[in-house]
Order: sequence, then structure tokens, then C-alpha cells
Amino acid sequence: MSQKLPVILAEKIAAKSRIFTVQAQHLAFANGTEVFYERLLGSQGGAVLIIPLLADGNLLLVREFGAGVGRYELGFPKGKVDPGETWREAALRESQEEIGFLPKKLVWLDSVTLAAGYMTHQTHIVLATDLEPSSAIGDEPEPLQIVPWPLERWAELLSEADFSEGRAYAALLLLLKHLGKI
Amino acid sequence: MSQKLPVILAEKIAAKSRIFTVQAQHLAFANGTEVFYERLLGSQGGAVLIIPLLADGNLLLVREFGAGVGRYELGFPKGKVDPGETWREAALRESQEEIGFLPKKLVWLDSVTLAAGYMTHQTHIVLATDLEPSSAIGDEPEPLQIVPWPLERWAELLSEADFSEGRAYAALLLLLKHLGKI
Repeated sequence: MSQKLPVILAEKIAAKSRIFTVQAQHLAFANGTEVFYERLLGSQGGAVLIIPLLADGNLLLVREFGAGVGRYELGFPKGKVDPGETWREAALRESQEEIGFLPKKLVWLDSVTLAAGYMTHQTHIVLATDLEPSSAIGDEPEPLQIVPWPLERWAELLSEADFSEGRAYAALLLLLKHLGKI
Repeated sequence: MSQKLPVILAEKIAAKSRIFTVQAQHLAFANGTEVFYERLLGSQGGAVLIIPLLADGNLLLVREFGAGVGRYELGFPKGKVDPGETWREAALRESQEEIGFLPKKLVWLDSVTLAAGYMTHQTHIVLATDLEPSSAIGDEPEPLQIVPWPLERWAELLSEADFSEGRAYAALLLLLKHLGKI
């Protein structure tokens, strides 16, 4: 069903820091109701989340400090798509930087948003296979801990307190569906 | 495996708008590397995402304008946990406001983060059943469109362009696992 989009009456930058930009919008809905919203403007290219799957059935996860949650977080390798990069180039670069492997095969599974109500951000979820050792230096403050995790034990990840990102759960769901396991 | 947390050398509010607060942190990692990070401070209680499941096997989804993505988004009913509320109270309130039903039974499935690297935000994912008609007035600018969706057709949601949130995918995965379908 199509619904008539609200009209943007005005918009401006409401706040800006080194990393974040907040845009304020004054919108008029089709029924005449006017509202003032704020949203976070994400980077143009979004982010890429890589699901590295070895031929032996192991996923390669990483454990790295998550400043948002203030603890070490277990998850899939990921990173920002830099200006001028495609999601594919970003996935190849991040794989080498974060897990020391170059995937010979990448398959885009889907793109997800974080919070459709107040963030423009998109994360592209990519399956990486045919992994060959190849390292590159990233911008991490310390080497990431690499955690091999048997795919068949995916359900245990949901109970791991430090595996917490909704988009990581989304990646598992997409992977299981892609592999015909559900 | 436990890893020694970075030491917080300094932190301050770097930017603030009506809705968003950005905190800057100066951290020292165990290896001596110092970094400057920024993170978004979420609300204390986080948000609640409700999976309303009718006895006839239909999920009740909602379609509402998502200012972040600038289009109508299909997803689960959800909302902020207000100060002083529990996730349970918030789920009961939001169910009545957004879909016009009061669940007699709520089961917490899990809590997920959005972006562990730069957001403190948490969303509590809750299964709502034994739904009885009961409405309350929310703060929506227009009535939400309610979209019944057969649970057995969950996989089609992944291909719907306007069903995009990673945490909504997470909710599907948790639901399927909870119901023993995967």
C-alpha cells in the first residue's frame, strides 16, 4: 500500500560533533499534523558487516572493545564503507584488516537499517567465503581477538551476553536462510 | 575470555540536541594506546519491541513513517520505555497505543543493541500473546496502519524493502527459536 509521504517544511543541522550529525526536520503529514523530528545522518556509503565462513564450517567472529556498550563485544567483522568505496571493496579491505583473510567470493545477502525512525544508517550484510590468508593494517587501537565459532552452534550465540547487536542476529538469520538451513 | 577494559581518562558531552546526546571519551587501552571516541547516550530504560502473535497465527505489524529513512516502514510495534516504567509496563502501554490490543501474556525473549561501538541503546524484545482489544491514545501524528502477517510467511518479510530494521530481523529469529521452529 502506498501512503503519501509527509512534506518537509524545513530542515537544518541541529547539532554536530566530530562523528555525529543531527538533522532537525519540520514535517507536515497528509492529515495536516505538523511535527518536529530529529534524525542522525549516517555516512553516505553506510557500513558493511562480513560473515566469514570457512570451508570447515567455522564462522570467524571478532571480539573488540565496544565504546557504546563499554565492554568487549563479540560479533562479525564490520566497518564503514569509506567515501569512494563500494560495499565490495570495503568488505575486502575490512576482512584483511580485521581477520587477516581475503575472501575470493562475496555474496550480498541484504541491507538493514538500525532505527528507521531516527537514523538514516544502513548496514550491508555480506557472506564471505573462499578465504585466503592476507593481512592489512587497520585503525584498531589493539589487535582484534579472532574467535572461530562452529556455524552449527549458531543458537548458542543468542545466549552470549556479549553477542548483542540486532544486526548480528539479522546476519545469522540471513545466513541460515541463504544456506537453506531454515 | 576476559579482557582488561580500557581506562576512561576523561569524558564530556560533545554535542546535545533536543533528542540526542553525544558523549566524547578519552580512553587508554591496556596496551597503552590512547583513543578519542564518541558515543550516543540512549535513554536509561531503552526501548521495547513487541511481537504480537494472535491465536490464529498472524503477527500484527505496523506501518508508520520512519523519519530516519524518509519513508513508511513496516515493522513490529515499539517505543521508548518511559522514565519510571519497566519494559513490561512499556510493552502493555505501547500495545494498546499502536495496535489496540492488551496482551495478557508477555515473555521477554532477549535484549539487543543497535551499534555496540557507538551507541549505548538497548531494545528489549518481547513476545505478546493472549491479545484482547483495548485502545489507548499515543503520540503518533496519524493512526498507524496495522498489517496482519501470517507467521508462516515470515521469510517473505526479509524481501520486503520497507521491512528493514536489523532488530526486527532479530525479533523474527528469536521468535522462530522460541517457538521451536528452528
